Amino acid sequence: METASAIGAAVRAQRGRVEALFAALARCGRTEPGFTRASYSPEETAAHAVVVRCAEELGLAVRRDAAANTTMTLPGRDRRLPPILIGSHLDTVPQGGNYDGAAGVVAGLAAVAAIRRLGLTPERDITVMAIRAEESVWFQVSYVGSRAALGSLPDGALDAVRIDDGQALAGHIARAGGDPEALRAGPPALDATAIHAFLEVHIEQAPSLEEAGIPVGLCTGIPGNVRYPDVRIRGRYDHVGTPRRFRRDAAIAGAEIALALDRVWAEREAAGCPMAVTFGRFHTDAAAHGMTTVPGEFRFSLDMRAYTAGVLAELEAAFLDAVAAAERRGVKVALGSRAEASVGAVAPRIRDGLAAAADALGIATRPLGSPASHDAAAFAKAGVPMAMLFVRNANGSHNPDEAMAIDDLLDATAILTVWLAAETCGG
Amino acid sequence: METASAIGAAVRAQRGRVEALFAALARCGRTEPGFTRASYSPEETAAHAVVVRCAEELGLAVRRDAAANTTMTLPGRDRRLPPILIGSHLDTVPQGGNYDGAAGVVAGLAAVAAIRRLGLTPERDITVMAIRAEESVWFQVSYVGSRAALGSLPDGALDAVRIDDGQALAGHIARAGGDPEALRAGPPALDATAIHAFLEVHIEQAPSLEEAGIPVGLCTGIPGNVRYPDVRIRGRYDHVGTPRRFRRDAAIAGAEIALALDRVWAEREAAGCPMAVTFGRFHTDAAAHGMTTVPGEFRFSLDMRAYTAGVLAELEAAFLDAVAAAERRGVKVALGSRAEASVGAVAPRIRDGLAAAADALGIATRPLGSPASHDAAAFAKAGVPMAMLFVRNANGSHNPDEAMAIDDLLDATAILTVWLAAETCGG
Repeated sequence: METASAIGAAVRAQRGRVEALFAALARCGRTEPGFTRASYSPEETAAHAVVVRCAEELGLAVRRDAAANTTMTLPGRDRRLPPILIGSHLDTVPQGGNYDGAAGVVAGLAAVAAIRRLGLTPERDITVMAIRAEESVWFQVSYVGSRAALGSLPDGALDAVRIDDGQALAGHIARAGGDPEALRAGPPALDATAIHAFLEVHIEQAPSLEEAGIPVGLCTGIPGNVRYPDVRIRGRYDHVGTPRRFRRDAAIAGAEIALALDRVWAEREAAGCPMAVTFGRFHTDAAAHGMTTVPGEFRFSLDMRAYTAGVLAELEAAFLDAVAAAERRGVKVALGSRAEASVGAVAPRIRDGLAAAADALGIATRPLGSPASHDAAAFAKAGVPMAMLFVRNANGSHNPDEAMAIDDLLDATAILTVWLAAETCGG
Repeated sequence: METASAIGAAVRAQRGRVEALFAALARCGRTEPGFTRASYSPEETAAHAVVVRCAEELGLAVRRDAAANTTMTLPGRDRRLPPILIGSHLDTVPQGGNYDGAAGVVAGLAAVAAIRRLGLTPERDITVMAIRAEESVWFQVSYVGSRAALGSLPDGALDAVRIDDGQALAGHIARAGGDPEALRAGPPALDATAIHAFLEVHIEQAPSLEEAGIPVGLCTGIPGNVRYPDVRIRGRYDHVGTPRRFRRDAAIAGAEIALALDRVWAEREAAGCPMAVTFGRFHTDAAAHGMTTVPGEFRFSLDMRAYTAGVLAELEAAFLDAVAAAERRGVKVALGSRAEASVGAVAPRIRDGLAAAADALGIATRPLGSPASHDAAAFAKAGVPMAMLFVRNANGSHNPDEAMAIDDLLDATAILTVWLAAETCGG
């Protein structure tokens, strides 16, 4: 077997390829500011074409599944063995960054390129998977591409409409070259029982690694979440001079709910319990609001996340208490739809293997609860052994200012590649 | 002098005229729901024609000034004495009600009709003034008609454009039969130093009188206000999983500012100090917000109003304190433009006279700070002795559901008429 340092050198030799890939991706959906590659948009499709060109240069077998995911496979000696999947997504939030989640696809391609450069042939297939539509902001459905491939999309998901154009997901999939009817009819593209492992490299969405001065994090778990995508508070529009006791101010009621949950979060975090609460949309009605009118309507989205089902239930109870308290202002709160995702467990054997690979390379790592949800969670839920590596990133993600150093991505890729070599290249 | 009860009877005899006036006004700008008589629109002009027909029946001298306000005068014995003006406006907000502010013009006409019925001749002119364009929603300029008549329009006001059609105020005035060039050249139609008093009857914009079971309120003052029309909080867009210590959540910062002022309001109100605080627009950025993104920007408008300059200054200090506290969340608050309107003081002598008139009539009243601004504030600012009467109204104003009883309006008109008789008819 190759030494860790030889593998590390082969990975670092991919720097030019990695930089060229990011430069090409940056031409897909550039907006001012940032990058906007909506799920199943032409910009996302262009990003898939970028990675396909790289895969073809590497001689990988390229396929597109019915959900228009792209798989790029380095064949193993025994094609019947369950493959190792390395994947992440190429879509972005509106005006997001170029690295979330493209870095994971680039890392997978760089790992495979390093394995080829070293002249290794894996025992089993290694498939890099560029996944569609991970960002739930577009269709209000998470992990569309990975769950479509696994056959675990929720009922009705294909009829969900894109939030800005009102067009159904099925039509968007078809226009991006997928086959929604095949998705409805089954069978799924992937058999979860026949996947050896799913690994995902992703930029950290928070600056914990930056704060710690460590380039790579070893994921300890993916949080579950409870979401209320569209809560509506109905009060009453009133004249700006209306005395306080007569008001039914929907915006102040919304502010009260948000601050109540913020207090719960601050208290629990001080007690050492990680969680997160986000009111991403939080707004009066642009068609009716005005400086001289008391707001009669207020809407918000809510995402609550935690690493155990118990903490999630606690958070949701606190939310419902805050709603009841806010209704004392004479408003009515319509919760709307509710969605949840279960906590995603990491396979200890793979995590230990990644830690050993990092040690062999001399790369500092630390355990890190994922701040966010990821495609990897869909694989974990389907029973596939899963692990993730996080790359240091100073400025958060879902914004144009993501700050990932290529060196740090290459460190994560080296850890992944050493693990791949040990796992399936006769190590 | 006539007794208060004889005057009251003469006013109540005007019920048919009052009902006919409201019925005719209801045919001007009926929309579904409510009434829409935009400032200087054909619908507002039609409402002026309605009151002119009534004035002609009463033999009043009708004039139109350069701002297309209508004055309807019962001549006094000495035409050189400064007149008493009784006025309000005939425009409405979009889909507003039929009574705000037409009730004040109808009350003035009914008062004059009662004085004629009693065979009284006033010492000085009594002029009923139907004022144009009080509602600032159309041109974003308040009190256009009254300030144009007084020569106190702000610079550039005639070039303000109507918010929905983009056409300049000057053109709208000309099409409504006014003379914008004369307004620019001066002199103003009214000499504020030669007006004996300005009185305005108006429906209450809040249900305080309804709550108290009292038909008429004696205005204690028109609130001044301090406005920040467009405050912007800049934080940082972050991934939904970002830990709390790294966030710069602009929406939570906005919620904190709003709730801090709401607390100040609740405390000061409990201590008997009237004021109002309204965050009319209160919102994340629709172009960038999403369920899975920590809000990096938040905007709001703020209107603070109170009845003394001292309380206004206190409120503004509390706002700036709340801004400083919110900035500890790592956000920056740009206050943007600031506007203020001074408190409109009621002339104590007239208010005492109205209270005595109500006592003589046996009509219950209570002191009431005006919730809103009114044309009367423009007269007070110009130095004209001013007073207002509010009429009970259950459902607020600026909506189609205004609920004013004609009996209550006749009570307010009786108070006004008894005062007029005492003030200028040899009482």
